[in-house]
Amino acid sequence: MKGESTIPNAPVIGVFDSGVGGLTVAKELKRWLPNVPLIYFGDTARTPYGTKAPSTIVEFAKEDTEFLLEHGANIIVVACHSAASTAKEALRAQFQYPIFEVVTPSVEVAARVTRNGRIGVIGTRATVESNVYARELEKLSPNIVVIGQPCPLLVPLVEEGWLDRRETKMILKKYLHPLRLQNIDTLVLGCTHYPMLKPLIQKKMGKRVRIVDPSEEVARMVKAYIDSKGLLRTHPSPSVKDTYYFSDLGVVTQEVIRRFIREPIEVRKASP
Amino acid sequence: MKGESTIPNAPVIGVFDSGVGGLTVAKELKRWLPNVPLIYFGDTARTPYGTKAPSTIVEFAKEDTEFLLEHGANIIVVACHSAASTAKEALRAQFQYPIFEVVTPSVEVAARVTRNGRIGVIGTRATVESNVYARELEKLSPNIVVIGQPCPLLVPLVEEGWLDRRETKMILKKYLHPLRLQNIDTLVLGCTHYPMLKPLIQKKMGKRVRIVDPSEEVARMVKAYIDSKGLLRTHPSPSVKDTYYFSDLGVVTQEVIRRFIREPIEVRKASP
Repeated sequence: MKGESTIPNAPVIGVFDSGVGGLTVAKELKRWLPNVPLIYFGDTARTPYGTKAPSTIVEFAKEDTEFLLEHGANIIVVACHSAASTAKEALRAQFQYPIFEVVTPSVEVAARVTRNGRIGVIGTRATVESNVYARELEKLSPNIVVIGQPCPLLVPLVEEGWLDRRETKMILKKYLHPLRLQNIDTLVLGCTHYPMLKPLIQKKMGKRVRIVDPSEEVARMVKAYIDSKGLLRTHPSPSVKDTYYFSDLGVVTQEVIRRFIREPIEVRKASP
Repeated sequence: MKGESTIPNAPVIGVFDSGVGGLTVAKELKRWLPNVPLIYFGDTARTPYGTKAPSTIVEFAKEDTEFLLEHGANIIVVACHSAASTAKEALRAQFQYPIFEVVTPSVEVAARVTRNGRIGVIGTRATVESNVYARELEKLSPNIVVIGQPCPLLVPLVEEGWLDRRETKMILKKYLHPLRLQNIDTLVLGCTHYPMLKPLIQKKMGKRVRIVDPSEEVARMVKAYIDSKGLLRTHPSPSVKDTYYFSDLGVVTQEVIRRFIREPIEVRKASP
């Protein structure tokens, strides 16, 4: 442990989200770090977070983090965009573990890859109206212009599994049209559900537009962290089993989970 | 008061719902009983109820009812279909006030108006899979055949205000198609949001199909009750002002409220 009590030597990643959307983050983490055990907590009983008061979001995020730590996690990934932007500082102040979240790496990548400085952000109404991406991007570079576009119907469409339906394509076209007119060259998927629609979004926006997928960006960042500590080499075979916890696990939620992750996973009901 | 402490002599209607959908019930109550003051509570912080455990729904429904009583209501209307079917008995056992709900009058009307005994019910996945309408209808008449059809995208479409869009029409057509094939002659709108789409639903189903709107049915029942007690004549001018409380009242919720009720209403944030 080399005196750093906060750095795990057998990494166990804990991911939390306000619901099922964070499963796209879990999927990317398993793709980049297949041998690192993962504990997921989806707060399906209290979803969504985005529309709630900041103090409530912070309180929920703390509870979710504690839940993951109690279940053996020692690296925390905040998959929920609302919790990431609202509770990041509070979590880092309270918990002595590495805490990653989806917003920062996406903002950094977007600022780096844009050529013309015109970046689109799509998300729920709550995320787009919170202006978190615009604020963070403008901090990095004052010349960046951020064009936000709320796409509130995409979450229900994804949860229904309507990933390639004509209706979804029409609605997506309508949502993305203003961004096309604004000549953006980079588009941030500001909602955990949207990576499920990435091929469709890329097609509608054209090859010229670079899509930034926060699920992938945060997974790469966690991998870089684990690599940098040499943690993978010393502990190749994990003893903790991947487990996916949800605070509500009704029939409907179970169906939606299956749409996000197709291979069999261990799903349990639990609350912080 | 004639010795009946539970019967109000100046009626004040308290309506609760898991969110904004119950505003269709509030609207019908104001249409049928414009002079009776109304207190609304929408539990937008904990919406939806349908996916939650029955014991949780009962607990929330009791809290919501207490909230309305504390704010002066003396007639309770359960606008939420999940709370209506799950918590009705528990509320009547605990509270000495008249308690109306959306399911019973709709079931009675549907059973009465059907000619061929084939009744369709549309709702959220949770409502349709709970089979509450089928159970209640079969209790009334064992020969009735109930065909349930979940329409999960209609709530987000209504909340977006996409009431007459091409995409909404296409999705509605897809949802209603199996019901048309099943030769139903009566269709129950088993979700508080759906009355907003009533003209479109009627058009897609054809004139032959009778639409049962629970918002209207429960409002008529409350009116009949108030009329029967002669309460309107003795107290024509109410002193309580209509107020709409919501447990979460973010920007997004406020927009959705405006889509449901177009005239200005007094909206406040409050929790049980």
